[in-house]
Amino acid sequence: MSFEIRILGSGAALPTSLRNPTSQYVQCNDRHILIDCGEGTQVQLRKYHAHIQKINHILISHLHGDHFFGLVGLLSSLHLLGRDKGLTIYGPQELEQIIRLQLEVGGAKLGFELNFVPLNGNEHKLIFEDKLIEIWTFPLRHRVPTNGFVIREKIKERKLNAERFQEAGLSLTLIPKLKQGLDVVLDSGETICYEEYTYPQKPSKSYAYCSDTIFDERIVEYIREVDLLYHEATFLNDKLDRAKQTFHSTAEQAATIAKEARVGKLLLGHLSARYETGEKHLEEASGVFENVVVVEDGDVYNV
Amino acid sequence: MSFEIRILGSGAALPTSLRNPTSQYVQCNDRHILIDCGEGTQVQLRKYHAHIQKINHILISHLHGDHFFGLVGLLSSLHLLGRDKGLTIYGPQELEQIIRLQLEVGGAKLGFELNFVPLNGNEHKLIFEDKLIEIWTFPLRHRVPTNGFVIREKIKERKLNAERFQEAGLSLTLIPKLKQGLDVVLDSGETICYEEYTYPQKPSKSYAYCSDTIFDERIVEYIREVDLLYHEATFLNDKLDRAKQTFHSTAEQAATIAKEARVGKLLLGHLSARYETGEKHLEEASGVFENVVVVEDGDVYNV
Repeated sequence: MSFEIRILGSGAALPTSLRNPTSQYVQCNDRHILIDCGEGTQVQLRKYHAHIQKINHILISHLHGDHFFGLVGLLSSLHLLGRDKGLTIYGPQELEQIIRLQLEVGGAKLGFELNFVPLNGNEHKLIFEDKLIEIWTFPLRHRVPTNGFVIREKIKERKLNAERFQEAGLSLTLIPKLKQGLDVVLDSGETICYEEYTYPQKPSKSYAYCSDTIFDERIVEYIREVDLLYHEATFLNDKLDRAKQTFHSTAEQAATIAKEARVGKLLLGHLSARYETGEKHLEEASGVFENVVVVEDGDVYNV
Repeated sequence: MSFEIRILGSGAALPTSLRNPTSQYVQCNDRHILIDCGEGTQVQLRKYHAHIQKINHILISHLHGDHFFGLVGLLSSLHLLGRDKGLTIYGPQELEQIIRLQLEVGGAKLGFELNFVPLNGNEHKLIFEDKLIEIWTFPLRHRVPTNGFVIREKIKERKLNAERFQEAGLSLTLIPKLKQGLDVVLDSGETICYEEYTYPQKPSKSYAYCSDTIFDERIVEYIREVDLLYHEATFLNDKLDRAKQTFHSTAEQAATIAKEARVGKLLLGHLSARYETGEKHLEEASGVFENVVVVEDGDVYNV
């Protein structure tokens, strides 16, 4: 099973010829999730051959245009392309009115059900889970209520060593416990040790998304030890005042969060249009946290 | 003075890699006008180095997403780029609520005044004029109320033949009438003939925009003898039923309108995403009206 992040837009409020406004397409154990949806996201999804009809969850961090102005266009296109499968959008409450109003004036009724799950930018909670993944939200601190997200693989069961299990002639009823990593004591008093009959699985991975936000160490607890962290780095440290004033972060601040949370790898994005390349962001962040990349539109990262 | 149309998007409801949703940038005698504003228009404007801050008029034909989903993003960017000059938007009444709602939730106040002029898709009337141009709207027939537009240069004054006028020793008070093409009878009874003292100007040009619309001969009267006509041609004639059902036109129907209105030149656009090229549209329309082009994104046409 794969867990990968496709960067669809790595820019900030003003789109440039190289950086579209924010959006990411996440595939985690065959769950397809879109995070944010700036203007032009539907074109980016098509450009990178994403499975757009497989997207069942759209997470919207906040209601600044560069994070949601592409949503209504994407929904319209999903409809025109024949979608009949429901879709759930998680985001600020006003989003539902904005989307429904625009769809209504066009006189078209979507061919699929649209569910809205309101997020208030103020809570740490589980917003979705199934047998393979969990999606969590947590508060970021920006000029308007803003939600961070963590996508986690569920803790995986161990894999049965079927051959050895059958040779031992054990009852099939033991399998669930052994797979969960639990020893079983039989009526005879014999202990069946899970390590003898199962293999360990690959560890469960996790991805955290923090955009947009001022430097805020309170988020460290929500993203501790994730394998991959995307954190906004709108500015460099020489614009620290501007970052504070606009409730954004610098590359060094993002790296500080990554270090404190002991994450595996840091992705920097949401670069202001004033920067032609991400070189200086990389240099600045590397001084604090080594395993860091400045993302570009189209990049793919495995978690 | 120039009068030119830049095609920013020539596609229909579903954007493709080659055809963006509808938008056109019109420069007429140093007036800068945007007609429709599908998703991604701001990026197209930048790509073609349009003078975006010079745009003072935005005309929105109707509230199907492919004609207006890019408007709020464009307005946000104009603000971020420092605009302080007012802007007038002409379009269906609900547009104002849609735009203001989205700007409000982001908590930002635009640095410029936004004026909305409601159009109901049901009237033929002058919606703007100054000393150089006129903008008219007229009804199209689509699934929702839809406005067509005509942009006309004002009828130009003749140019004074200053040398001959001075030689004749005539009073300067005669000039305005002569420039308007009127002969003047002096108190002495002598007739001063305007043709002797003025040159003719280049004729005033006009451009008509018809998208989206079903084939409707009633529009002929509104666009009669314009120099350049843009008419939608979503389909070919083999999809005549589909065209009727969706209130769109075929290439042949667009050409029929052009012929009946005796326009100078016909531009076809708004091609359905099912067509990879416009070759067949051109072939079909040419059978009815010779001076026809199928537009592509980025094309520029002089009126």
